[in-house]
Amino acid sequence: MRVLRLLLAYDGTDFHGWARQPGIRTVEGVLQDAVGRLVSEPPRISAAGRTDAGVHAEGQVVSFHGRADLDAARLMRAVNGMLAPEVVVLAARRVPEGFDARHSATGREYLYRIHTGPVPWPFTARFVWHRPGRLAVANMRAAARHLTGRHDFASFCRARNLPMSTERTLRRLAITVRGDSLEIRAAADGFLHQMVRSLVGTLVAVGEGKRDPAEIPIILAARSRGAAGPVAPPHGLTLMRVLYGPKR
Amino acid sequence: MRVLRLLLAYDGTDFHGWARQPGIRTVEGVLQDAVGRLVSEPPRISAAGRTDAGVHAEGQVVSFHGRADLDAARLMRAVNGMLAPEVVVLAARRVPEGFDARHSATGREYLYRIHTGPVPWPFTARFVWHRPGRLAVANMRAAARHLTGRHDFASFCRARNLPMSTERTLRRLAITVRGDSLEIRAAADGFLHQMVRSLVGTLVAVGEGKRDPAEIPIILAARSRGAAGPVAPPHGLTLMRVLYGPKR
Repeated sequence: MRVLRLLLAYDGTDFHGWARQPGIRTVEGVLQDAVGRLVSEPPRISAAGRTDAGVHAEGQVVSFHGRADLDAARLMRAVNGMLAPEVVVLAARRVPEGFDARHSATGREYLYRIHTGPVPWPFTARFVWHRPGRLAVANMRAAARHLTGRHDFASFCRARNLPMSTERTLRRLAITVRGDSLEIRAAADGFLHQMVRSLVGTLVAVGEGKRDPAEIPIILAARSRGAAGPVAPPHGLTLMRVLYGPKR
Repeated sequence: MRVLRLLLAYDGTDFHGWARQPGIRTVEGVLQDAVGRLVSEPPRISAAGRTDAGVHAEGQVVSFHGRADLDAARLMRAVNGMLAPEVVVLAARRVPEGFDARHSATGREYLYRIHTGPVPWPFTARFVWHRPGRLAVANMRAAARHLTGRHDFASFCRARNLPMSTERTLRRLAITVRGDSLEIRAAADGFLHQMVRSLVGTLVAVGEGKRDPAEIPIILAARSRGAAGPVAPPHGLTLMRVLYGPKR
C-alpha cells in the first residue's frame, strides 16, 4: 500500500458539500466513486477541509491509501477524464506513510469574495456574494484586529457541531478592496464549522454599522453563537490553500 | 413612444443563442418576456450582436420602443429582479428617436479566451476554451497582421449565412498571453456569422503549426469557408463592447 496525496479544485455550486452522504451528490462521493473505478475498492479519503454545501476549493488537499502499483500521474489523468472541469486534480503524488491530509495539516487559508456593486456580475455570481451597498471598511479592519490571534471561537461555530476545544489561532483576517469587490482572507491552524462564514457575516454587520468593532471582545467572551452576527452565504467562500510542515 | 437603450451582460451557457425561437430558451426570448410583463406587449428588440448558442456578452446593447411613461431606472430594476444574475441590465436610458442598437452601431469588440494549461480550471470553464498545449504565438500574430484591415471575409463566414456583402474592416486582432491564458481581441465595423470563431480557429491552427501565416492571403482570396481553419467552440467567446458614433 502507498499513500497518495491529491491537490483539488472544485466548483461547489452543484454539490451538497464535501462529506459523502447516501443518495446525495457530494464532492467526496464523486471523487471516491471515480477513484473506486480505478482500484479494487473505493478508498477512505481524508480531506484537509470538509467544505459545506456550496463552498468551493482552489486548493483542497486529500489523501488515501492505494495499491502499491497505483501510479499518481495515471490516476490524475483518469480522474480528470471523469470529473473535470467541475472537479479537477491539479497535482497528484505519492507521500510517505503516515501522511494524512486532515491530521497532518498545520494551517488552512480561505478566501471570501463579496461584490458590493448595484448589479450582480453573471460570470462570477457562482463564487461571489452579491451584497450591494458600500461597507465601512476601516471599521471592518478594526474588528478584524480584535479577532486575530488565539481565541476561543465558540461564538463563531455552528452550535450543533461544537468540538472538544473551540480554541483556534486566527493568524490572519485581511480585507482587500478593489473597486466594488471586497475580499476577506482568513488563515488559521484550523477552523470550526461555519467559522469563516460567521466571521465574514460579523465583519459585514460591522461594515453596515449594525455592530461596533468594540463589541468583538464581548462576542468572543460570550462563547455563544447567538452573540455573533449572521452567517454569510456559502457560495462566496473558497478553500484556497492547506499548509503542512512546521506550525507558524 | 420613446426608445430605450439597455446595456446587457449575460452568461450564454444555458441559452440557445440570442435570437428568439419558438419553444427554445434564448436571451432575446427571456428578455422580451421580462420586458413584456412590464409593458402592454413584448417589444420588438434590436440587438447589436446576435450572439450564437453558448456565446456570452459583457457589453451587449439592445434597443426597443416603449410607452412614453416607461421609466428606464424602474425597468432596469424590474428586469434584473427577474433575470439576474444570468442576464443583467448594467445600464438603461432613453435615447433619441431613430437610435437602433443594431443599425446605429459603428463597431463591435469581441474577446476570445483560451486556457492552454494541462488541466481545466473549474471557475472559468464556462467562459474559456480549454485547449491544452503551447501555441506558437509569434506565428499567430503574423497571421493576425494579414487579417487586419479591409478584406472580403467570406472564407470566415458560415457558408449558409452569407450576406450581400462579405467585406468587413477588421480594425484589430490582438493576442495577449499571460501565463497559460491566451486572449484574442477582435474589433471590426461588423462581423459575419461565426467570423470571430473562424478567425480564432484559424489562428489556433497557425499556432499549432498546422497552417502557415503566409497562407492567410490565399485563404482570404479563396472566399470559401473550406479554405480557413476550424471554427473555435462558442463558449470561449464574449461580446465585450459595441461602439456608436463616428466610424473610426
